Amino acid sequence: MRYAVLGTGEVGRTLGGRLLELGHEVTLGSRSRDNPVALGWATAAAGRARAGTFAEAAAAGEVVVNAVGGRVALDALRAAGAERLDGKVLVDVSNPLAFEDGWPRLDPVESDSVGERIQRAFPHVRVVKALNTVNCRVMVDPGRVPGEHQVFVCGEDAGAKEQVTELLGEFGWPAGRVLDLGGIRAARAVEMYLPLWLALSGRFGGADFNVEVRRAG
Amino acid sequence: MRYAVLGTGEVGRTLGGRLLELGHEVTLGSRSRDNPVALGWATAAAGRARAGTFAEAAAAGEVVVNAVGGRVALDALRAAGAERLDGKVLVDVSNPLAFEDGWPRLDPVESDSVGERIQRAFPHVRVVKALNTVNCRVMVDPGRVPGEHQVFVCGEDAGAKEQVTELLGEFGWPAGRVLDLGGIRAARAVEMYLPLWLALSGRFGGADFNVEVRRAG
Repeated sequence: MRYAVLGTGEVGRTLGGRLLELGHEVTLGSRSRDNPVALGWATAAAGRARAGTFAEAAAAGEVVVNAVGGRVALDALRAAGAERLDGKVLVDVSNPLAFEDGWPRLDPVESDSVGERIQRAFPHVRVVKALNTVNCRVMVDPGRVPGEHQVFVCGEDAGAKEQVTELLGEFGWPAGRVLDLGGIRAARAVEMYLPLWLALSGRFGGADFNVEVRRAG
Repeated sequence: MRYAVLGTGEVGRTLGGRLLELGHEVTLGSRSRDNPVALGWATAAAGRARAGTFAEAAAAGEVVVNAVGGRVALDALRAAGAERLDGKVLVDVSNPLAFEDGWPRLDPVESDSVGERIQRAFPHVRVVKALNTVNCRVMVDPGRVPGEHQVFVCGEDAGAKEQVTELLGEFGWPAGRVLDLGGIRAARAVEMYLPLWLALSGRFGGADFNVEVRRAG
């Protein structure tokens, strides 16, 4: 499969690297064509790795992963261009996080979410919110954390969620550990989990954790 | 121990009933002295149960449990009166939840929380946020849900958090399953978890669940 991974930060490089290991082609997209991080990543990776602009990545990918920060996601996707995104599955792993005085802030929050904003701005893109509730190393290697902990997906397109569930399976998340929370509006719920994730990360002094939802019966 | 439980809804009655079972004295507080739900509850319960106004309950209790809705918590506590609350441990189990068009909304959210508002409005009360992340039946009977799932506490007063941890132990939460998230500002994190709790509740069609935080190493 050909993937576009938008964003050259740790999340994008980690997801891109794992997709390469799994045998996929990956174009890492960034704002400019001469992004040294993206070029270095593509050079260090195998021949199936490319670097390019957001537009070049989107054009090359059959599936698009949004791994830029949630607050700049729409800008990156507008640079990618609706005509290169329409009809494709877009996995949004982002969180609209910023820090003020050391405290996390989300924008949007509660009455809106990045997932919803992307779906509204690109109505012909098949947006699936996923993986934003775990650190990127856990995203691509859930076995780092013991137990039957889960990830969440939501989105309007059932087929797109199935496709993302298969991708999650490649990463090591069995389908039984992928909890479908319904339509894209549930992106609010998983994005608002971030402050608790951050509080737990602060308490543990690390990011190698996740929650396992336990149920009676 | 003498407990004041403010709020006569399902949460207040469930917590009050369990505290009675554990041998404590409980005064269930409500806005008016002739609240039929509170009077019926006190009559049906043993002799250690009382019903009264918020002020009467606060006066009677050594420890106060805020089990009114998060959006009316300050009103209830003002009716209780700072002079009857000062110096006492106050366990805030509330969430500032309302529904609009069937969707959950939180107010305050993100840059503030009910827990913080209570602590600011009553600086001499020893506020501990706890238990708001589980259904009231799970609060008082964690064994309803399998696994080593946890509850969170936060607050400014370490002694108060220890005292609440002991109370949680009486409910069935071993100290190792009580995660201290730090100061009262972490109330934002646990209150913002509610939309995810609601999404999970909707998916499962029930409230008998909780999250178990799993960690590497």
